[in-house]
Order: sequence, then C-alpha cells, then structure tokens
Amino acid sequence: MLMQSSVIFSSKPAWVKAVHRTSSTDSNSMAATVPAPKWAQKTVTLPPLRRGCHLVTSQILKEIRPDLSEFKCGLAHLFLQHTSASLTINENYDSDVRDDTETFLNKIVPEGRSAPWKHTLEGPDDMPAHIKSSMFGCALTIPITDGRLNMGTWQGIWLCEHRDAPTARRVVVTLNGI
Amino acid sequence: MLMQSSVIFSSKPAWVKAVHRTSSTDSNSMAATVPAPKWAQKTVTLPPLRRGCHLVTSQILKEIRPDLSEFKCGLAHLFLQHTSASLTINENYDSDVRDDTETFLNKIVPEGRSAPWKHTLEGPDDMPAHIKSSMFGCALTIPITDGRLNMGTWQGIWLCEHRDAPTARRVVVTLNGI
Amino acid sequence: MLMQSSVIFSSKPAWVKAVHRTSSTDSNSMAATVPAPKWAQKTVTLPPLRRGCHLVTSQILKEIRPDLSEFKCGLAHLFLQHTSASLTINENYDSDVRDDTETFLNKIVPEGRSAPWKHTLEGPDDMPAHIKSSMFGCALTIPITDGRLNMGTWQGIWLCEHRDAPTARRVVVTLNGI
Repeated sequence: MLMQSSVIFSSKPAWVKAVHRTSSTDSNSMAATVPAPKWAQKTVTLPPLRRGCHLVTSQILKEIRPDLSEFKCGLAHLFLQHTSASLTINENYDSDVRDDTETFLNKIVPEGRSAPWKHTLEGPDDMPAHIKSSMFGCALTIPITDGRLNMGTWQGIWLCEHRDAPTARRVVVTLNGI
Repeated sequence: MLMQSSVIFSSKPAWVKAVHRTSSTDSNSMAATVPAPKWAQKTVTLPPLRRGCHLVTSQILKEIRPDLSEFKCGLAHLFLQHTSASLTINENYDSDVRDDTETFLNKIVPEGRSAPWKHTLEGPDDMPAHIKSSMFGCALTIPITDGRLNMGTWQGIWLCEHRDAPTARRVVVTLNGI
Repeated sequence: MLMQSSVIFSSKPAWVKAVHRTSSTDSNSMAATVPAPKWAQKTVTLPPLRRGCHLVTSQILKEIRPDLSEFKCGLAHLFLQHTSASLTINENYDSDVRDDTETFLNKIVPEGRSAPWKHTLEGPDDMPAHIKSSMFGCALTIPITDGRLNMGTWQGIWLCEHRDAPTARRVVVTLNGI
C-alpha cells in the first residue's frame, strides 16, 4: 500500500487541482508519475549593479531553472535581504521604461540639501533608498505553472538598486508546490 | 494502514494548526474528515474596465468560491499578468475612496508634455501606467480561513486600470492549503 | 509501512530541498526526524500605536516564535486586516529612518484644505491613510529557514499607522512549511 498524490482535472478545464491524499490501491507507477508536495530554498547572490532599475529575470532563472522545472503547480517566492534596494515586476523589453522609473523615483524622493531627512549619517542617497525600498517592496511571489514562472508576456523581474555604491544583493528563493 | 492528516488544536486557542503526517492506526473515517494538502490554480479573465480603481472582490470570488470553500486553512495568491495595471487591497465601501486614489496616482505620476519620460511610443498614458503598476504591485496574497478569504471588514480587492484604453486583464489565482 | 518525508541535500549545497513522499521502507525513526508539511494560522492583535512607522518585529515574534521554531523551511505570511495602516519591511536600527519615512508619506499625500479628496467624512487623515496603505501594502511574506524568519541583518517588520487616533490592529499570521 502506498500513499499517492492525485491530480484532479475538474469539469471546468481552467482549474488544475491536486490533492495530496491516501489511496488504498497499491500502484507504484501512479506514485511515480504524480507529483508530491515539495519545498526548495536557496540564497541567490546578484552581483553589484549600478544605481537604477535592472532586468534580472534571466539571472534569477539561471540559478533556479533546474529546480523550478520539477514543479507542475506552485509558487516561487523571492525575498531581497536588503533595505536600500527593491524587487518589482514590470516591463521586460524597453530599457527606457527602467530608466524612466528611476527618474520617477529620484523625482518623488528628494535627495541632498533640499531633503528633510534626519537620517543622513550613511550618505545622502541612503534615506531615499530606504523609502524607495518600501515603495516597491523587497519581495515577490510568482505562480509556477508547468515548471516555469507564469508571468505575462511583457513581465520581467527587476532589481532596483537605490544606493550609489553598487553592492552584491542576496535574494532568498523559496519554491513550494507539487 | 493509512496516511492521515491531523488537525491539532493547541492549548493557545488562537492557533489553528495542522500537520500532515503518518499514523499507524487504520482509520478510514479520520482520513476522510481531516483535510489533505491541496493546490488549485486557474487563470481568471476580468473584462475591460475604464481607467481608474475598481472593486473586483465579487468578480474574483464568483470564479473561485466553490474551490475556495474546500480549504480550511491556506493562502490565496492573485497574480496580474500585466505591467500597466495593478492589484491592491483597500476600502470596499465608498467609491469616492477609489476615485481619490486615482486622483492621487495621476497627481504623483505626471503625464503629457510636462512629463520627463523617454518611453512614449505606446502613448502618454503608458509610462505612467508602468510606474503606477510598480507602486501598487501586481500580486496579492490573502489568508484563507474556513473556506473564505480572511480579509478585514472594510477590505476589498481592487483592480487599478492605469491605461486609457480598457483591456481584458488576466489574473492567475493559486490556492494552497488544507 | 510508513509514509516518510525525505530531506534531500543536493550536490549544489546552496539548495535545501524536501519532497514529501512515500517510502517502501519501514523506519519509524526516520519518520520521526524528518519534518512533515505543516500549516498554522493565528490572529495577532497589536496594541494601538501613534501615527507613524513602528518596528514590531519583536512583538510579532513573541506571538509566533514557538510555532515558527517548528518549521525547518517555509514561508510566513502576515496580513493586516485594515485599510488605513500598512506593513512593510525596512531598517531595524535607527528610529530616524522610521520618522523620515513618516515625513515622506505626509509630504507625498496631501492632507487638509489643500487636498483634493472627495472622501472626507471620516476626517482629514482618513483618505491619505487609505492611499498610504496601498503604497506600502497590507501584507508581507517572509522566508522561514531553520525555525526563524530569514530576513537580512538590517531588516525589520514595520507597522505604519496612518490614522491620528491610535487603534488596535489585527494581523493574520499564516505559517506554512516543513
């Protein structure tokens, strides 16, 4: 007798469902083909990038693709362990979009003598960097479908570096699914 | 012998805990009543909406409620597959709150001749739409408790459409829990 | 015969992987040492805090640490059930960073006579509070590694209270992992 996971395709074809459950039938082959709940976690280090918004989808995928491909359905969680950079999902084609987003961030969060910040010990770019980090956030959760990140055609993963001095950035990647 | 999931109610009543584990007792009835880990994933298409913030809780629930009701405890993840719209959680009652939020977004992200954007090929509303999308984000994770989204009394799911030309928007919904 | 979870350490040491699966070997000891998929959910109430940004990492941990410590690998999800406050991750050391962030929010979202809001029935601070809530968001997902929140050295959990009148705030905490 073996425990089995069963993939249930509902009458509404849009849903893909899976229930991890027991079975009273003894079937090694089915247990082998039906995915079981999995967790995988890894810290990816992205090399230093200049201040601005950067498309890092391929760098992230290079680190996680073999493991990602083992998940039929699930969620990928990316967590940046820093407070002066951010992760966001946005346009993956025209680098002008990334430049314009950096222009916006610099316009909306003042820096230098005109800025009202008390926290200035770590340089004029530090306090603005903290604010930008909370505006865009430091984490992403992306659906996994059939072994790949199920993003839209024009979506990509951006690392936004808000400090002047480039620093390597750590991203904890957690994969969970079946 | 059957594998079983056990729901453990701790001495601190605020916690509801479940461990999916083996048991050496043969009890079909228990295996039938205790929930097993489940995954469900579906792409929901929201019809075109005019530029602005829209309450879409009931539209989303209409698509997922039967499946949601099967989860005692878990997480619902909503992922918008677009870079010129956003998903956020905010007030679910007064439509003025949604109008005022749209007013804010238009005030903070300049559009037209005064705007400094390089990316203008797709129209004057496109680059502002990308920025607004990263400000509010394209994904939500909401706790599931006893078969429903465990939001606060005044919380609702908003789709914010940042483009002038209404477009159908796809949301990948992933449910995970027991 | 017992169902077992197996922790697989890959050849790339950075990954920690676990597959919850069946085994044909009868080994009680292994079943006892290898973690099984777990869910835990609890509503934590944070006491009223004055308007501004507050570091609440230790308050949250006090409520969840014993349960968190049972997870080797997973995700912690925090969901604020309110639309006039927010949760964000930012610097955990200098309180000036929190004060400056509050200064920024008040600068960017106008309040009082100069503000263009239609929604004013609940006071001049209410509509700005809703906007700030969507800017920073009401939810966080944080990786769990070896029984603790795997944040960076300088990261902490902030509750940002955007209303003038302090109110107790509820956070639904969901832990999921192995």
